[in-house]
Amino acid sequence: MKFELVATDGAARAGRLTTASHVVETPIFMPVGTHATVKALGPDDLRAAGAQIVLANTYHLFLRPGHDLVRELGGLHRFMGWDRAILTDSGGFQVFSLAKLRKITDAGVEFRSPVDGSTHFLSPEISVEIQHALGADIIHPLDECLAYPVSRPEAERSLELTLRWAARSKAAHAGASADRQALFGIVQGGAAPDLRRRAARATVELGFDGYAIGGMAVGEPKTAMYELTELVAGLLPADRPRYLMGVGKPEDLVRSVARGVDMFDCVLPTRNARNGQAFTADGPLTLKQARYVREDAPLDADCDCYACRGFSRAYLRHLFMAGELLAYRLLTLHNVTFFLRLAREMRAAIVAGAFGAFQTRFFSRYPVSASAEEPASE
Amino acid sequence: MKFELVATDGAARAGRLTTASHVVETPIFMPVGTHATVKALGPDDLRAAGAQIVLANTYHLFLRPGHDLVRELGGLHRFMGWDRAILTDSGGFQVFSLAKLRKITDAGVEFRSPVDGSTHFLSPEISVEIQHALGADIIHPLDECLAYPVSRPEAERSLELTLRWAARSKAAHAGASADRQALFGIVQGGAAPDLRRRAARATVELGFDGYAIGGMAVGEPKTAMYELTELVAGLLPADRPRYLMGVGKPEDLVRSVARGVDMFDCVLPTRNARNGQAFTADGPLTLKQARYVREDAPLDADCDCYACRGFSRAYLRHLFMAGELLAYRLLTLHNVTFFLRLAREMRAAIVAGAFGAFQTRFFSRYPVSASAEEPASE
Repeated sequence: MKFELVATDGAARAGRLTTASHVVETPIFMPVGTHATVKALGPDDLRAAGAQIVLANTYHLFLRPGHDLVRELGGLHRFMGWDRAILTDSGGFQVFSLAKLRKITDAGVEFRSPVDGSTHFLSPEISVEIQHALGADIIHPLDECLAYPVSRPEAERSLELTLRWAARSKAAHAGASADRQALFGIVQGGAAPDLRRRAARATVELGFDGYAIGGMAVGEPKTAMYELTELVAGLLPADRPRYLMGVGKPEDLVRSVARGVDMFDCVLPTRNARNGQAFTADGPLTLKQARYVREDAPLDADCDCYACRGFSRAYLRHLFMAGELLAYRLLTLHNVTFFLRLAREMRAAIVAGAFGAFQTRFFSRYPVSASAEEPASE
Repeated sequence: MKFELVATDGAARAGRLTTASHVVETPIFMPVGTHATVKALGPDDLRAAGAQIVLANTYHLFLRPGHDLVRELGGLHRFMGWDRAILTDSGGFQVFSLAKLRKITDAGVEFRSPVDGSTHFLSPEISVEIQHALGADIIHPLDECLAYPVSRPEAERSLELTLRWAARSKAAHAGASADRQALFGIVQGGAAPDLRRRAARATVELGFDGYAIGGMAVGEPKTAMYELTELVAGLLPADRPRYLMGVGKPEDLVRSVARGVDMFDCVLPTRNARNGQAFTADGPLTLKQARYVREDAPLDADCDCYACRGFSRAYLRHLFMAGELLAYRLLTLHNVTFFLRLAREMRAAIVAGAFGAFQTRFFSRYPVSASAEEPASE
């Protein structure tokens, strides 16, 4: 994997990430394709939205349909009909947030599938093996995701475990697949700045193709998230991409790019679309509100997505209220387009050396919660 | 509205129907767009599938979002972003099959909305008025749909009511909209051949732009449906289009075209798609069956739809089993493409004077239920 810095503007970076066979221009937002599909969208929609890379969840694909099946059918790209880049997480986040009856040891984590109740075991080596079978362009080491808040000893224990697992993952990835798939390290460490610092330094010491900042947006205040992101980004090598996992709202993307982050993923645009929320330059819009019943205007006059070119708010609201499947596709397409346009606009501003002006313009329209202390998670 | 017969082959007809602003080549299948959307498909998908005309339900649109709103937003074509032909039914079928507490008088029918329990009244004049507001290319008079079986006196009473309502609908449609919207007559009469004959003659006597055959596929044996269809089609003027309402399975389309029918609508391809069933030249295929788990082949090797070009049965099954919305879109797109290709192939065969050979070829692959006495309805 190659990563070139095309331009910087303060801490903000415009880059070009070249995987084994795909190019991704950063900053970039990655739509979440949990079950090897970005909910409600086809690959045709994703292309139209300008998606360059999507995320798929190792945990979900491991449970269903199984990584062996995906490998047998030619890997994730071919399986889901997506000929651009794919990133897989390690399964850690889902094991710790979704699975039942988990038992963590140094060896790995035992958990029960919520799909069929069957028991499974995930270790750093097994996660890497699964991700080799899936064949994404960028893969991740198994890590432990902490809840917020946790005690200091618990945070320290967890960090050391994640670091040991990172070293084992790197060893497991060495060899044939290493040319084909990039392995990112994940910086954990909870909400304590010194532990985050230790995590960043130790992870960089191990040496990875890129660096993810994990365990953010888990309930800590927004200000803490921004501060920790800035702290960690500042300790990561400039010549490697930086990925802030699971973040976030449009304003979080802008503020995190300002702090040196290159990559993002979040279920927000897709999940909220299915709840009838559309993102616009003037903030989110909730379609079930009666005010949109007769509105002939598109969701967002600035948007060139298919939903905005072809349909009124009144029609989209009608579809949503009637529970029609087309509502989910059109709203998701619009939201993903919005997030990807935001990333493109940030990139253009950085290249033009005008990221400050971009932020001013963005925040002059986009309403942000008054309380800086709102939790970073949804 | 203009209708030209391009070719005939036995009783089978290839035609060209020209509405106020759209052309429809017959035989044609009309996907059902109940709430001003063909479930799970966008207008882009419908175009890709080759749809020339879609059906929308007056009853459903009357209840939600209301015909006044649709008119205010420029009519159904603009509201749903569909720039080809649209046909609306009269609401009769749904009032008699879905609504609660209906009270039928000569004046019209009172019913309660299943959406919000509110009470509504539909008369022939009101149905026409609603359909004027919706603005479809082809509209229909309010009719009474009988269940099967019914007594002879009940069938006679109902037929006379439908005929009186047809006359009133025609009168209500006379005037400005008559140039812009074609009004089809509906031939009812239940399962008694002599009543069907009387219905056909009296409806033709009233004079309409085209003729629908209603009240079929309501539980009568398949053989009766074919016989009644043949009987009625033979009594309809050759220079007007014939529409068999709510029919049907692929084999029903072929057999009905052989009996002189030009137009069809049915929820089968869309509804069954959402249940995981895909139509192929070798018959329907049920994706939840375990045999498709590892199948790398497309749904139908003969099909050029997006679902068949881009995805394996294994992937589509995975999407369906995981409840992913993309499954509904891709399966619906495939099924609608299948029905529209069947209509196109029938047309080409009729034009070539080879409809007999087409039928032989079709039935040599497509498996049809052994019992000719199976009920015509789903």
